[in-house]
Amino acid sequence: MSEYTGYNGNSLEFLKSNKILVGDAVKILADITYSGIIMPRYEHTDDKHIVLKLKSGYNIGLEISKIKKIEKNSSVEKNSSVEKNSSVEKNGSLPNILLLSTGGTIASKIDYRTGAVTPILTAEELNSSVPELSKIANIETKVLFSEYSENIMPDHWLKIAETVKEYSKSDYSGIIIAHGTDTMHYTSSYLSFSLAGFPIPIALVGSQRSSDRASSDAALNLIGAVKFLTESKTNGVYIAMHQDENDETIACHIGTRVRKNHTSKRGAFQTVGNNPAFLILNNKIHKNIEKKFFAINEFNPKIKINEKVALVKYHPGYNPDLLKNIIDSGYKAIIFEGTGLGHIGKNMYPIVKMANEKGIFMGMTSQCIDGRVRMTVYESGRDLLNLGIIPLENMIPEIAVVKAMWVTGNTEKYDEIKENMLKQVASEFTT
Amino acid sequence: MSEYTGYNGNSLEFLKSNKILVGDAVKILADITYSGIIMPRYEHTDDKHIVLKLKSGYNIGLEISKIKKIEKNSSVEKNSSVEKNSSVEKNGSLPNILLLSTGGTIASKIDYRTGAVTPILTAEELNSSVPELSKIANIETKVLFSEYSENIMPDHWLKIAETVKEYSKSDYSGIIIAHGTDTMHYTSSYLSFSLAGFPIPIALVGSQRSSDRASSDAALNLIGAVKFLTESKTNGVYIAMHQDENDETIACHIGTRVRKNHTSKRGAFQTVGNNPAFLILNNKIHKNIEKKFFAINEFNPKIKINEKVALVKYHPGYNPDLLKNIIDSGYKAIIFEGTGLGHIGKNMYPIVKMANEKGIFMGMTSQCIDGRVRMTVYESGRDLLNLGIIPLENMIPEIAVVKAMWVTGNTEKYDEIKENMLKQVASEFTT
Repeated sequence: MSEYTGYNGNSLEFLKSNKILVGDAVKILADITYSGIIMPRYEHTDDKHIVLKLKSGYNIGLEISKIKKIEKNSSVEKNSSVEKNSSVEKNGSLPNILLLSTGGTIASKIDYRTGAVTPILTAEELNSSVPELSKIANIETKVLFSEYSENIMPDHWLKIAETVKEYSKSDYSGIIIAHGTDTMHYTSSYLSFSLAGFPIPIALVGSQRSSDRASSDAALNLIGAVKFLTESKTNGVYIAMHQDENDETIACHIGTRVRKNHTSKRGAFQTVGNNPAFLILNNKIHKNIEKKFFAINEFNPKIKINEKVALVKYHPGYNPDLLKNIIDSGYKAIIFEGTGLGHIGKNMYPIVKMANEKGIFMGMTSQCIDGRVRMTVYESGRDLLNLGIIPLENMIPEIAVVKAMWVTGNTEKYDEIKENMLKQVASEFTT
Repeated sequence: MSEYTGYNGNSLEFLKSNKILVGDAVKILADITYSGIIMPRYEHTDDKHIVLKLKSGYNIGLEISKIKKIEKNSSVEKNSSVEKNSSVEKNGSLPNILLLSTGGTIASKIDYRTGAVTPILTAEELNSSVPELSKIANIETKVLFSEYSENIMPDHWLKIAETVKEYSKSDYSGIIIAHGTDTMHYTSSYLSFSLAGFPIPIALVGSQRSSDRASSDAALNLIGAVKFLTESKTNGVYIAMHQDENDETIACHIGTRVRKNHTSKRGAFQTVGNNPAFLILNNKIHKNIEKKFFAINEFNPKIKINEKVALVKYHPGYNPDLLKNIIDSGYKAIIFEGTGLGHIGKNMYPIVKMANEKGIFMGMTSQCIDGRVRMTVYESGRDLLNLGIIPLENMIPEIAVVKAMWVTGNTEKYDEIKENMLKQVASEFTT
């Protein structure tokens, strides 16, 4: 990597003229005096700031026009915070939390010597970058893999579930899964179904802003998740993220009722059609739901999957031949993302009939995302019911796909697939 | 049809015991005395109400437990309001509006003699069912076809556009297109692109509740749309529907920035990431946008289409072979509904590379729906850029599909397709 990675224009000029490289320990005089390490920048933002990692572990952005003086700080040992290998002592009076790292922005730090994004490897590093954590829980960490979440595949879900399963009888109060945000709600759904009845709460935590940005939400999301896991006295699988653009509230969403509804906002995750299950505000937990997360009480893991499930989003001009290709490719289930109350055009009927005759399970959800499919209201809906399409109530399309992968992984019989798709497992339906 | 269509349980028993059939003119004594005609019910709701069409044209639901007396009303001539064929005289002081009917709940009435849903055919019928309309505009009607909107195909779009095109120099103040709600935003987008620069405003109007329900929103949506068309002094293509569950506000959404976001609510339509362009509240129009709807001033219709455009919604477990089928089927453009800022898994790269080498246009949108794709932030995004995927800013996925059909219908050259996909035509991008 370049010694100025991510800097350009004015900020690059500023570093060069002061003979400061990325990774240098510096002392900066601006409104006050700052000491820290110059971080590389990986997002193509403006050229007016430099990013400094403070001793506390936080990054801040400093406007170069307000910097009166910058100099190398020989008293700070370069890389000290990262290379230090002090052991974290367990505090017997605090609850224990297991953090499983799968990758994504949240679980990464940028190595300013190589420019590589590498996972947070040790509890020491985690505690040094988010020092508040060690005051509320003993966090033990384990790296499962290191993937951005667009590269998380069903095989990764299996690995996470198999790992979590082993901790059903442990002294952990809860488990954090650090995960990229892109496909977090797919993973949370798979864990909700496959680990039904898991006795302690699980929180998937991500970060919308990368850790080299001053506005990173990683630390607060982690702190909120730990508070939730140690104090909520619940179980289930949740996604814990910023509620909105403020740094005040962390929302815990039911893992089967949540979507990423904005590409970049910190409050990107929303519970569909409802408030989040829990809010963490001013260090206090507010509970919004009364129902139990799992439909069963006993932990009964079913960690299997069948990937032969297709999602068909209908739109005007959708060519039924594409559906025929899916049938011919041996798919076991098709989840339609229909229009409105659960419709697809009548030009689809012949192929739908064919799929039904082949015993392929077909479930209907709505691309409206919010609201319930109701296929008895209009003639088109009744036609589709007669052709064997099963309305999936108000299950979110993406979650229905995951559930169908899980259900068809556990049985091949049509009647059992249908029965299980309609049976509440992990709060995927609401009334 | 049965003489009791849609009634069951208590309400059926009530009608039978009083010897009243659907279609009978009745007088009902409840809190006050009502006169009207018993309507059939087509939605499977409760058995506690009967629905009465009043002389005003409105339907109301009456709770049978509160009905003190019901009797046939011989003084009301059966079917009189429908069979009456009085001509509607044009009022020279009022603006003229053209209403094109394409089908859907809004444009339908239930014939209580046959049970069939039939289109509102004449201006007389429209004015008799929504009497307020004749006081604010002269409405002329034309039936194009009668399809529920899940059956509206790109060929229907062409027919609507060809019809509307003829009225670019007319004495109409605006055009209403009565349309089913399911795919209304797809149609509004096609009209926005193909009729760019059309001089008078166009409003697509639908109804979320069928006209045999007391809560039907058809009348208010129509009145709101007429107010908007006659008073807004704008052009462009909009969707005019209830803003929320109240009967107070009609929202006019930009036709390329709107989605149906709830399966059944009256306020189902929302402008993505913004307020509606116009609100009609207390008979007054409130304008929220300053920008011009169309990027061009001159009317320059381009009414062509190519249906060889595929929408690929990526999810974990999506099999790249499905994308290969699309390539092999001769598609001209692929719109990805990627995750987060615009990503798909790296297992897709080989097939994406193949599509690029074949000269297929590939555009990236986000299944987050709200927010902008940004493919320079993470390595995965930069990989996809190198493989030839074009980020489509914050275009809504469904609208990007329609635009790609329109663009590829007008040119086959890759560079022109790319240029036109990225060029603002009808407010499909916001800044």
